[in-house]
Amino acid sequence: MDNRNKYSFGIDVGGTTVKLGLFQANGILREKWEIKTRTQDAGKHILPDIADTISEKMKEHNLHEEDLHGIGMGIPAPVNSQGVVHATANIGWGYKEVRRELEELTKLKVKVANDANVAALGEMWLGGGQGYCNVVLATLGTGVGGGIIVRSEGIIGEHGSGGEIGHILVEPTEQEKCGCGRQGCLEQYTSATGIVRLAKRRLQEDDTPSTLRDRELSAKEVFDAVKANDQVAIEIARTFGEYLGKAFATISAIVDPAVFVIGGGVSKAGKILLEFIEGPYHKHAFFANQEVKFELAKLGNDAGICGAAKLIIEE
Amino acid sequence: MDNRNKYSFGIDVGGTTVKLGLFQANGILREKWEIKTRTQDAGKHILPDIADTISEKMKEHNLHEEDLHGIGMGIPAPVNSQGVVHATANIGWGYKEVRRELEELTKLKVKVANDANVAALGEMWLGGGQGYCNVVLATLGTGVGGGIIVRSEGIIGEHGSGGEIGHILVEPTEQEKCGCGRQGCLEQYTSATGIVRLAKRRLQEDDTPSTLRDRELSAKEVFDAVKANDQVAIEIARTFGEYLGKAFATISAIVDPAVFVIGGGVSKAGKILLEFIEGPYHKHAFFANQEVKFELAKLGNDAGICGAAKLIIEE
Repeated sequence: MDNRNKYSFGIDVGGTTVKLGLFQANGILREKWEIKTRTQDAGKHILPDIADTISEKMKEHNLHEEDLHGIGMGIPAPVNSQGVVHATANIGWGYKEVRRELEELTKLKVKVANDANVAALGEMWLGGGQGYCNVVLATLGTGVGGGIIVRSEGIIGEHGSGGEIGHILVEPTEQEKCGCGRQGCLEQYTSATGIVRLAKRRLQEDDTPSTLRDRELSAKEVFDAVKANDQVAIEIARTFGEYLGKAFATISAIVDPAVFVIGGGVSKAGKILLEFIEGPYHKHAFFANQEVKFELAKLGNDAGICGAAKLIIEE
Repeated sequence: MDNRNKYSFGIDVGGTTVKLGLFQANGILREKWEIKTRTQDAGKHILPDIADTISEKMKEHNLHEEDLHGIGMGIPAPVNSQGVVHATANIGWGYKEVRRELEELTKLKVKVANDANVAALGEMWLGGGQGYCNVVLATLGTGVGGGIIVRSEGIIGEHGSGGEIGHILVEPTEQEKCGCGRQGCLEQYTSATGIVRLAKRRLQEDDTPSTLRDRELSAKEVFDAVKANDQVAIEIARTFGEYLGKAFATISAIVDPAVFVIGGGVSKAGKILLEFIEGPYHKHAFFANQEVKFELAKLGNDAGICGAAKLIIEE
């Protein structure tokens, strides 16, 4: 069978569910489904469960080994180039030869990578980074994560922490501690919780009227207030954009991407987010990095299965 | 002939001389020599001159096409993956298909890359980064340059400006302009000229006695005074180390290298330099990046020819 007509399975292993997708090599998603992540017994059921559901799906679609590129998989832990993990925080595994074990269970070719890099690969293939091979995905959620793609491959790094952009120091004067134990990390100002923190600080500074006062705050409400032209909310968004734009300028000086893709819950605020980032970026970026693009992530929760499938597809 | 016994030419094209080396695949340098860089007539003599000297050297050593991996070459300009440059500042070329032209002239396989990445590759192969495949070379000279190696390959970037670490913003309060037109770039504090600038500023602050007063200053004299226990010089070195260590912590959060290699004229100060960098680095780095190594560059002016030879060697 021509490689371009072969299928791939893309798998995104999370702490509560395993998401799976069956893809054509041109990116068309034939089917997606989920199974539970059984983390008990040191996660020993996870790979057999995956092998079972893959086997069923192959029967259902009448697919055989020769019809498939194989299985790509993203997992929430650092993974080395041999598909080995040394520890996981949420799925029970300690040292595990993930690639070898799943290959033995399925008799299919398997590739495994860290979930942040896999999501970035997905956005490169079918999402906000489409058409480029040098892509930075910044995921603004509860924390700030990242995936950096250089020449179509994720930067894993020596200790599996490539793309940990949430822990770039951006505010030397910060007194409060970040989750990582240091002070002034990007995550403290640009995650969903970081934006709420910025908002509370700003509201305490004075009595300027704002629709953000006297209520539960969320990143969404801050950006909703920005859209309603609330001046205090706009100031908060400017502070957010200044930190993120400056951090992106630093990332550009180091890896020189074609495009920054913004994902995670905060990105649901929409295009208005980009307006606050672009100005500070252009002010702080090196002249050779002025031509970069800014895009919103497009794949949402499907980024993981898309990128995982891309991982295994042979051009 | 077994690939491991083949030879390679490593070439480092500079604005005044072209350095050349004939290497065995195990890294042994059989011979090195130089020719002039004839930049006149839009640099049209440079590649024919190189082809001539390579041809002579092949005759002298009785080498034939089948005895060689080919020619690797570093040039002072952004180069794309096809070995094409679009402009050069110092050697006369505009748009030029460097790889194709040199392959046609020599009938040998050619690879071309940017000189900063090539030098980093050299230090990875035979110098301060030996044994690793994720290496950052910081060249502290008149300016601050960098080469970032991920999985044994240099990060070129979308616009050829990967590894431009001299233009990371490290001091938001700076008023003086950097050569790039912005303010507060790493280069303004950690290049040879940046260190002199730091020294002058510090000396003007008060009248603390110092051997650095009332004389021509250079980075070398500042570090010589540090070694002689001059307290003002030590303060200057601490400021230098704080900026560089913090920038390295940022680089680690993004590309997670195994080792930082410090090269350029400033590195001649020796191991004492590393002491001022390591403390601030460990203070500011993410926990996953604490295990990084710091080394001095070992190849000096040979880094370019070494890395260029490595570029073309097939494992």
